[in-house]
Amino acid sequence: MSLLIKNGEIVTPDERYVADIFCEGETITRIAPKIENQPADEVIDATGKYVFPGFIDPHVHIYLPFMGTFAKDTHETASRAALVGGTTTFIEMICPARNERPLEAFELWLGKADGQSACDFTFHMGVTRYDEEAERDFREIVKRGLSSFKIFLAYKGAFGITDEELYHALTLAKSLGVITTAHCENADLVLELQKKLLAEGKTGPEFHYWSRPPLVEAEGVHHLMTFAETTGAHVYIVHTSCEEALNQAMRGMERGVNVWVETLIQYLLLDRTDAEKPKFEGAKNVMSPPLRDKKNQEILWNALSKGFVATLATDHAPFDFTQKRMGEKDFTRIPNGIPSLEDRINLFFTRGVKAGKIDLQRFVDAASTQAAKLFGLFPRKGAIQPGSDADLVVYDPNYRGTISAKTHQMNLDYNSFEGFEIEGRPHIVTVRGQVAARDGKFVGTFGRGRFLTREPSHF
Amino acid sequence: MSLLIKNGEIVTPDERYVADIFCEGETITRIAPKIENQPADEVIDATGKYVFPGFIDPHVHIYLPFMGTFAKDTHETASRAALVGGTTTFIEMICPARNERPLEAFELWLGKADGQSACDFTFHMGVTRYDEEAERDFREIVKRGLSSFKIFLAYKGAFGITDEELYHALTLAKSLGVITTAHCENADLVLELQKKLLAEGKTGPEFHYWSRPPLVEAEGVHHLMTFAETTGAHVYIVHTSCEEALNQAMRGMERGVNVWVETLIQYLLLDRTDAEKPKFEGAKNVMSPPLRDKKNQEILWNALSKGFVATLATDHAPFDFTQKRMGEKDFTRIPNGIPSLEDRINLFFTRGVKAGKIDLQRFVDAASTQAAKLFGLFPRKGAIQPGSDADLVVYDPNYRGTISAKTHQMNLDYNSFEGFEIEGRPHIVTVRGQVAARDGKFVGTFGRGRFLTREPSHF
Amino acid sequence: MSLLIKNGEIVTPDERYVADIFCEGETITRIAPKIENQPADEVIDATGKYVFPGFIDPHVHIYLPFMGTFAKDTHETASRAALVGGTTTFIEMICPARNERPLEAFELWLGKADGQSACDFTFHMGVTRYDEEAERDFREIVKRGLSSFKIFLAYKGAFGITDEELYHALTLAKSLGVITTAHCENADLVLELQKKLLAEGKTGPEFHYWSRPPLVEAEGVHHLMTFAETTGAHVYIVHTSCEEALNQAMRGMERGVNVWVETLIQYLLLDRTDAEKPKFEGAKNVMSPPLRDKKNQEILWNALSKGFVATLATDHAPFDFTQKRMGEKDFTRIPNGIPSLEDRINLFFTRGVKAGKIDLQRFVDAASTQAAKLFGLFPRKGAIQPGSDADLVVYDPNYRGTISAKTHQMNLDYNSFEGFEIEGRPHIVTVRGQVAARDGKFVGTFGRGRFLTREPSHF
Amino acid sequence: MSLLIKNGEIVTPDERYVADIFCEGETITRIAPKIENQPADEVIDATGKYVFPGFIDPHVHIYLPFMGTFAKDTHETASRAALVGGTTTFIEMICPARNERPLEAFELWLGKADGQSACDFTFHMGVTRYDEEAERDFREIVKRGLSSFKIFLAYKGAFGITDEELYHALTLAKSLGVITTAHCENADLVLELQKKLLAEGKTGPEFHYWSRPPLVEAEGVHHLMTFAETTGAHVYIVHTSCEEALNQAMRGMERGVNVWVETLIQYLLLDRTDAEKPKFEGAKNVMSPPLRDKKNQEILWNALSKGFVATLATDHAPFDFTQKRMGEKDFTRIPNGIPSLEDRINLFFTRGVKAGKIDLQRFVDAASTQAAKLFGLFPRKGAIQPGSDADLVVYDPNYRGTISAKTHQMNLDYNSFEGFEIEGRPHIVTVRGQVAARDGKFVGTFGRGRFLTREPSHF
Repeated sequence: MSLLIKNGEIVTPDERYVADIFCEGETITRIAPKIENQPADEVIDATGKYVFPGFIDPHVHIYLPFMGTFAKDTHETASRAALVGGTTTFIEMICPARNERPLEAFELWLGKADGQSACDFTFHMGVTRYDEEAERDFREIVKRGLSSFKIFLAYKGAFGITDEELYHALTLAKSLGVITTAHCENADLVLELQKKLLAEGKTGPEFHYWSRPPLVEAEGVHHLMTFAETTGAHVYIVHTSCEEALNQAMRGMERGVNVWVETLIQYLLLDRTDAEKPKFEGAKNVMSPPLRDKKNQEILWNALSKGFVATLATDHAPFDFTQKRMGEKDFTRIPNGIPSLEDRINLFFTRGVKAGKIDLQRFVDAASTQAAKLFGLFPRKGAIQPGSDADLVVYDPNYRGTISAKTHQMNLDYNSFEGFEIEGRPHIVTVRGQVAARDGKFVGTFGRGRFLTREPSHF
Repeated sequence: MSLLIKNGEIVTPDERYVADIFCEGETITRIAPKIENQPADEVIDATGKYVFPGFIDPHVHIYLPFMGTFAKDTHETASRAALVGGTTTFIEMICPARNERPLEAFELWLGKADGQSACDFTFHMGVTRYDEEAERDFREIVKRGLSSFKIFLAYKGAFGITDEELYHALTLAKSLGVITTAHCENADLVLELQKKLLAEGKTGPEFHYWSRPPLVEAEGVHHLMTFAETTGAHVYIVHTSCEEALNQAMRGMERGVNVWVETLIQYLLLDRTDAEKPKFEGAKNVMSPPLRDKKNQEILWNALSKGFVATLATDHAPFDFTQKRMGEKDFTRIPNGIPSLEDRINLFFTRGVKAGKIDLQRFVDAASTQAAKLFGLFPRKGAIQPGSDADLVVYDPNYRGTISAKTHQMNLDYNSFEGFEIEGRPHIVTVRGQVAARDGKFVGTFGRGRFLTREPSHF
Repeated sequence: MSLLIKNGEIVTPDERYVADIFCEGETITRIAPKIENQPADEVIDATGKYVFPGFIDPHVHIYLPFMGTFAKDTHETASRAALVGGTTTFIEMICPARNERPLEAFELWLGKADGQSACDFTFHMGVTRYDEEAERDFREIVKRGLSSFKIFLAYKGAFGITDEELYHALTLAKSLGVITTAHCENADLVLELQKKLLAEGKTGPEFHYWSRPPLVEAEGVHHLMTFAETTGAHVYIVHTSCEEALNQAMRGMERGVNVWVETLIQYLLLDRTDAEKPKFEGAKNVMSPPLRDKKNQEILWNALSKGFVATLATDHAPFDFTQKRMGEKDFTRIPNGIPSLEDRINLFFTRGVKAGKIDLQRFVDAASTQAAKLFGLFPRKGAIQPGSDADLVVYDPNYRGTISAKTHQMNLDYNSFEGFEIEGRPHIVTVRGQVAARDGKFVGTFGRGRFLTREPSHF
Repeated sequence: MSLLIKNGEIVTPDERYVADIFCEGETITRIAPKIENQPADEVIDATGKYVFPGFIDPHVHIYLPFMGTFAKDTHETASRAALVGGTTTFIEMICPARNERPLEAFELWLGKADGQSACDFTFHMGVTRYDEEAERDFREIVKRGLSSFKIFLAYKGAFGITDEELYHALTLAKSLGVITTAHCENADLVLELQKKLLAEGKTGPEFHYWSRPPLVEAEGVHHLMTFAETTGAHVYIVHTSCEEALNQAMRGMERGVNVWVETLIQYLLLDRTDAEKPKFEGAKNVMSPPLRDKKNQEILWNALSKGFVATLATDHAPFDFTQKRMGEKDFTRIPNGIPSLEDRINLFFTRGVKAGKIDLQRFVDAASTQAAKLFGLFPRKGAIQPGSDADLVVYDPNYRGTISAKTHQMNLDYNSFEGFEIEGRPHIVTVRGQVAARDGKFVGTFGRGRFLTREPSHF
């Protein structure tokens, strides 16, 4: 099986030139200005189009139990949506309850994806408790190919860990060369503010914001910075939503903390008022941290363009409106999440690159290469070079369309970006040499997606 | 009983002039340039001397159990030392264990002082747990005249409280109009760092610093700022030792948090190397937060002179060298404290006012008036005006002497400021109209000191 | 001539108590709870009222030539307005043109006030050029009793000085013990932005803001901080209007710069939209720095309450609407100034003290005592103690009224605070023992105001 | 002419893999895991070695008149030194005096390099005055292929420009799409401090530091940030030496200023004490800004590793010790500069990559790719991709050696890094397909270096 992509403009964070790419089997084997006399099973004309490395979403939830229900996507529907949108690899969160064995959770989550997904995948291992047994499991899980942890400073009683556990988790991560991703919100403040709001009769989705104001998030980030500095661990702040939190991370960076910051496409394009829409419509836009005041958008765009924010993810967590209605009388029971796995790249390209907020190379970096580097996938993923997996996105910057729940691939009855115009779309998306999406249509193979084992970094 | 002080230069934060002061009974009744024809039982010539309001030490420990032993001062020896040094009021910390009833602790501490102390006194009520019973006690204690709480973010398992308790304590304090003083160090980090150091065989007093580095304290302050901002409570950071912690408080002030900062005379004049002295001598200088790098001294002096640091206290906690030896093989067992109750004012005057680091009026403010205002004692204390208690210090700026354990009044076999020259000393110290110290000699009456009940501020 | 004020609540920054005050001639001679048997020429019943030290406005313009015209107030109308509003001392700016002799300017300005003003006055000496001749004049002027300079980083070509002159002015100030007040805006940026705006046809008063955006002011403050740190000079930033500028001053304070900050009542209560009113009405609210976005108001109130901003002034500069119309086709020709000399205290009390934004003692400090201390008038002014000038304000907190150009004393056909409700007013205002205003009516004596000579501080 | 480099590990900022590189003529034409059957004129075995894109030094002086003398290097000696050290392109500063025509200066500098240099070169055009004639010249110079300006906030009277000129230079740069590099020190402060020090008899090289302390540099950076924000221009801060200056740049970045930061290898490895060496030896280490306190080194390394500092340069300016002696009685007459053109890469690799302070890819980025991107040379330079110039460095990480003036190529009788061990050296350095250095020996062709014309960016 061979594939030849001709005349595309290859764009990586540090390259930009027109050339042909030849892939043999699952791998890129040759890049040259003109590849002639080399027969290929499939030839794609990329003239006038960009060729990007396959995009990586480093933060998604697919198998996600919540208060007796489950997020709507399967690994089939999710990978289909991802691929159509240009994402060829995602990293899912394994979130065991505190009373579950980490190793069993790992096997459970792996089992859900394996043989189902059409795109490649791996996991961040949730460290939702820390004791001797758990530590043994974490060590085993790292051996089996996961090289990143996930911790929650929020969700006390569910996933949240104590400061003692935090210290030990980071110490273990440091010793194993594993990076730790972190949800940074102070759990106790959230709980107390939720209780206070509910007690005052403030039960609608518009009050979700007030249970998790910016200082709750900034507190979480500051806390993480302190523990990362003390232990020397490498940390990664997921879903950073506001200036206050970003500033705490910046102060950490300045004093030498090994920290990277992720933001989400939602925080760049939506704002607090979207979660305040009447008739419970706002519930569709409830996630944590909450959508913020609009002024934060420019700050996040600037930070992304300068690399202060390293990556752009989605925290994809698809609950349909019926499920959202579980919180109709109590916003704390609204399942969190604004599903965006499918639309991330097109929105980022349209509102970022086309709008002049971010340059094309930093766009690729934030949406693909950085995640590959941080999470041990580079240069297998996130690169266009001989030897890399042939995950490629031939992107058409001239496409014009509109986002709509009517046409999207996600298993969901709404889309928070409904009606947003997009100016660009993947023409061809390949997974290890095989075309998996073509002009908005999924043409891939369910179950072909592979579990990506990753080595620790031994930093 | 009447007292006339003549020709002194009265100095308060906002007054400075030569006048006579007449006291009748326990109270200042008249201030005028020349008071003639008014007979007095005692007439003091204050020509060429300053007359200050009696100094207040807002942070002392006297009755202080620690690992089976007790701090050495009684309320007799402590008040004697205080008065000789110009301090006419102190505020002691009530530190119940988590399993003690707050109300019983209040009664215990009050009983220790009442009828013993030669100077006036009151207490900060330690909130070392928070539940319904405790809350009832706190409300009762406020009714009985305590209008300030003390919380510990450090000392997990002993005095430290959880974030949930912290939220509730501050919410109660806010609703009652009570200010909350706080020991800001992250308890878990201290514990983990202690374990790590001991495991590495680092057991000497010189390692105490490394178990509580600046970021541990800065973390505590940032945490307090977050909770104070969320609850609207008024807070007071005790014993601030370093730039990192101060900066976090400043950031809080700038965004409107109701916060005041205390530092200690020890942090202004001693540094980390004093706790690293060989032959376990450093143990005498072990306290928490630890003595810091010398560069912090200028930063704290500047902050004091500008009012960013509101008050100067001692955290007086007198353990003798025999007691300090409890930690000979394990620095975590060294009783904490550098006793300074007696020397605070003379050192502050010498190294601050005489050295040009702080002006005379800010000196009075930081060592007396600010504490009176913050803790509900003003203008009964901290002021020189008709109606105020006749607590006065006639201060001789021409005295020259040297600090020494051989001559000090504290019940202690060493003095961390041994050999420090002083350039000034109280000539006369009065407690409510009665002379209690004269030129370094105690001439007061044990048991005359009164428990000062205080009203909440209803801010 | 003697005066007895009975039963008032005396409030200074560090005192608050009910007492009687006896003044003999021009001086306070006695303060006591009850002064009986001491006959007085006039007895004022201050029951239920506050007694404040006379307020000081440290930043006013009265004699003020501008493009061929003059500000409207004389020292008679200005001092009348001041006294009715509770201000008993003002400090006027002497602003010589670069080609004028400083000493002649001093004599000119002094001559305008002397024998005219009903209240006491002094001056900041404008250093609008620096050469040998000028230096000799400045030394002479300091000998004659001015102990503060004024420099402009703005107004290039008029009052602005070069960096070389700035360095020498501050070095001289430091050596003489003189504090330097500074208008901090980058002159060149203002000029260039003005040119750019006019060239784009943006000529209305609403564009004044854009010629002096916050970064222009922050640049000026940062610049001053650098020069003050280098020379060790004491500096005072006049009319600080926004967070950006304040932050630069705070950073200076933190690293030990001897700097104090002034804001104006206008910046606390008015905002950018007031200068954007249609039909050229906005021109009435054109001043420099410009009125800012509303969000700055809370920041300035907080900074005032914490003492980060030391003083509250007016930068009084009264041009009537006819004069304002000089800039009808070119906002750069609108005479700058929002006259507020008369209303500062009542507005500050109403919107600050009554609204709970600032406590009563800090109110007195910011509007009186701080200025007295900083500018060498303390304790002659700004204090209520025996020996101080009998400048007293018996203030009625129960008065209710409304500000209006129809009733104000200033020589002006509009009032930017028209319609503002006030909750408090001076009942009696005295100047050195003589009643000069009574319930909104001027009853003083023109020409009785005295030029206050001041000693350098030799810091 | 063709060249084949086999088996090297290609390292660019975003690629790292073993492959063969084929160059035809001056260009890279093919990259593939194994290139067989393609005959080449020269084949280089790079097994076990890195292949980097040719390094770029974005800040050098070669033709440099100073007080009647000239820097020692010619374009021959400089390019020889550069190439032996792995630098294949340098950007020289054109520094006309204020009375020279910019266009003539451009032609003068170009004439000095053209036909002499063995490596490629381009220039930053010094904007040392701004008027109509100069503006015309700048426009013409940009047309001729320079797309970057250089301004000096320092060197008043020589190169320094006024604020008005600064505004216009940045406005022009913005409109032309030209980036402006800036020397940020406040000229007046430097002059005044120099005068003060000399007047105090402080004439030795150890006082150079005190004439340009960190706040002088921070002031310059803050000033530039203000003007860049106002005009929207893209700016680049040359030779950033200390935390204070870096912080000002970071604050600019955070609020959206288009700014990039350069530091120098000297600031990473030398410190203030090196310029304080006795017997005038310190003069060898006099440059501006001066070498700083050692603590800044870690801060700069961290900032480099995180990308806050974009590039690493040398500010190469070679004056021999005889020339340095011009300042024997007056440090202000010491020619500035610590020549490092030859040693930059080996020192950066040894002390950075080998010491674990910076990763290999960021090393390439800071020393090559970033400069190429910022200054319009990318992807012609700074990249390894088909179509790029075949400027390649085959680097031997196993080489061990010692820096010494005895063996270096620069025309200089000392080396400030004398005795520094290096752990790596270029094995082969090519310039557009031709080998120009081999194992420390120059084998290139003088005069083959080409003037690189560059397009503006139209950002």
